[in-house]
Amino acid sequence: MNSSIRLAVIGVGNMGSAHAKCVGSGQVEGLTLSALCDIQKSRLDWCRAAFPDVPRFSDWHELAASGTADAVLVATPHPLHAEIAAAAMHAGLHVLSEKPADISVIRAREAAKAAEETGRTYAIMLNQRTNPLFRKARELVRTGVLGELKRSVWIITNWYRTQAYYDSSVWRATWTGEGGGVLLNQAPHNLDLWQWICGMPVSIRAQCDVARYHRIDVEDDATIFARYANGATGLFVTSTGEYPGTNRLEISGTRGKLVLEGGKMKLFWLAQDEDEVRFASKESFAHIPVGEEEYLPEGEETAHRGILQNFADHLLHGEPLLSPGADGLNELAISNAAYLSAWSDGTEVPIPFDEEAFDRLLREKGEREGKAVGLDAHDVKGEYSERWQVRW
Amino acid sequence: MNSSIRLAVIGVGNMGSAHAKCVGSGQVEGLTLSALCDIQKSRLDWCRAAFPDVPRFSDWHELAASGTADAVLVATPHPLHAEIAAAAMHAGLHVLSEKPADISVIRAREAAKAAEETGRTYAIMLNQRTNPLFRKARELVRTGVLGELKRSVWIITNWYRTQAYYDSSVWRATWTGEGGGVLLNQAPHNLDLWQWICGMPVSIRAQCDVARYHRIDVEDDATIFARYANGATGLFVTSTGEYPGTNRLEISGTRGKLVLEGGKMKLFWLAQDEDEVRFASKESFAHIPVGEEEYLPEGEETAHRGILQNFADHLLHGEPLLSPGADGLNELAISNAAYLSAWSDGTEVPIPFDEEAFDRLLREKGEREGKAVGLDAHDVKGEYSERWQVRW
Repeated sequence: MNSSIRLAVIGVGNMGSAHAKCVGSGQVEGLTLSALCDIQKSRLDWCRAAFPDVPRFSDWHELAASGTADAVLVATPHPLHAEIAAAAMHAGLHVLSEKPADISVIRAREAAKAAEETGRTYAIMLNQRTNPLFRKARELVRTGVLGELKRSVWIITNWYRTQAYYDSSVWRATWTGEGGGVLLNQAPHNLDLWQWICGMPVSIRAQCDVARYHRIDVEDDATIFARYANGATGLFVTSTGEYPGTNRLEISGTRGKLVLEGGKMKLFWLAQDEDEVRFASKESFAHIPVGEEEYLPEGEETAHRGILQNFADHLLHGEPLLSPGADGLNELAISNAAYLSAWSDGTEVPIPFDEEAFDRLLREKGEREGKAVGLDAHDVKGEYSERWQVRW
Repeated sequence: MNSSIRLAVIGVGNMGSAHAKCVGSGQVEGLTLSALCDIQKSRLDWCRAAFPDVPRFSDWHELAASGTADAVLVATPHPLHAEIAAAAMHAGLHVLSEKPADISVIRAREAAKAAEETGRTYAIMLNQRTNPLFRKARELVRTGVLGELKRSVWIITNWYRTQAYYDSSVWRATWTGEGGGVLLNQAPHNLDLWQWICGMPVSIRAQCDVARYHRIDVEDDATIFARYANGATGLFVTSTGEYPGTNRLEISGTRGKLVLEGGKMKLFWLAQDEDEVRFASKESFAHIPVGEEEYLPEGEETAHRGILQNFADHLLHGEPLLSPGADGLNELAISNAAYLSAWSDGTEVPIPFDEEAFDRLLREKGEREGKAVGLDAHDVKGEYSERWQVRW
């Protein structure tokens, strides 16, 4: 294998320009910035100014066929993610896609299928997986420290956005441009971590409030009720309308409870499985000794750079992918199912659900929406924002 | 008015015997224990031993007609609460009823109606209203410190019970004997405080899991989704199957957020209303300065004794009732509506709902249940338990 992977960035907006600067300034060992692609002239002008020696393309098909790259980072609007990813893999390129994998699971499957067919690497930018506390939570849950799952509750309401945010780009907060609201733009990180730590639910019910706080066509507030295969339940609450908001994840099981809040994690552990006490105890109000342990983050949240480094290390050294593309379909399945439930008055939607029906309904939503979706030239920031990391 | 109210206790089980001992030992100024009533001989034997000079009755009708009391405390199984309360008021007696007001709102209305018709005082034992933190939370919300309500989330899952608890009395955890599970027995305090602080929702959706953790005929785990008139939403999660469980109430509004957890309350207050910033700010990610204030409980949670004292002070000195009987219908409306929703696959149930239909469905549940409901002679403890106070 090469000692350096030539990476092209497709879509040089807010995120793409930041990724380009990260790779282009040599912050990721084993990646070199080899090409840039955007359909907007103003952004290509920015590219020329920032990276005069890096080839530029206005058509991603040309880029993919140009031989200038071994891999592409897809940072276009959501509805192009899977199409470009699949085509790039069929052109022999590895792919790191921004989240979400696409706007519907059935579309995202095209990319996952292309990865299987071509053997190319397909990863997804679920950068909050690099947070040490969430990694530790996953380890504790997966190694059985909590016993069998009983409940998860994530209140993740500190995604506050103003109306100015929604007005800043024509594709924002539209069914056509983003495929949804807070569940498709802000919460995918949390939906992913939720299923990464607790596992996938088998059904979803949801209330999605369209325009509860803002003048938009999609939801800015959502409550999801999840059922897991063992009968356990989960709640996921998110919003872009609360201030200061909350980020608190609680997971309880037969052997204890985990609470992540305020940048730390607390483990309450039982010396004995509760479900043994439940039936064996002669006491009506049994007391089970509880031990407590507090975890502070060990190590850095390497965020986007960490995912890029992991992508390079996977390609160059076979390191396991931290965020495989196929995993990106899971959080999307939860949000798609949440919409299906909300659109049918909160009925229970099984996972897997009717993906074709969802995709059709989503397109119908797009056709009916008020905001015309087109191009805009904003958001060439070229810098990572702390906002994109886990906030407590 | 008399300088002392003669109080009779009807139903001398676990709670009734504790109330009798409290009043009988002179702990409530202005109340004297004047009569005791139970249908079980073993309990009347306990009464004779504990209070040899206090008249005993085995029929509450006889007690009500006996002239031995000015007021009664009803501590029978739930389905008798309103019937006895109404009859007692029509017999000229004031009533303090144990919670819940009854097992269905339409039945509880009988007592509320009797109070209106007779002018007698009708209060309800919502003893957690005496907790200083909840009183302070109510004050902050009601005086507008949080601005307009956006969301409330109460995770109240520290009502742990063993199977032995459910097996300890034949009426426990039955539709006929208690009118439900955790929502009718443990959570009424929290449902009441929830509506007392945040106001009544206009609709309810719920998932109630029957026998999720225990071998019972009713729910031991419930999740309620509430909608308020202004579009705000609320979540209420309760269970008798988790250990150590959680007691955390979060209320957010346009001017900040309240969090009650771990025996204290934290107020996050905004210098400016968020909903002004939302539309006025030119920033996509506006920062609103947040002040923080921590409240510890000021004063004592006087609990049951406090409600008894308030009842006496109301009758003797015109002090406002802390827990008027009519208020007891509110928390019951929430749990009744939750059952209606759960029984119709989580559909949205407006409040007010079809109370006759609910009562009929509840009776049908009772007719179908496996556990025969009869008398039992347990639970004459004669002491208040700390368990009945707010636990964090």
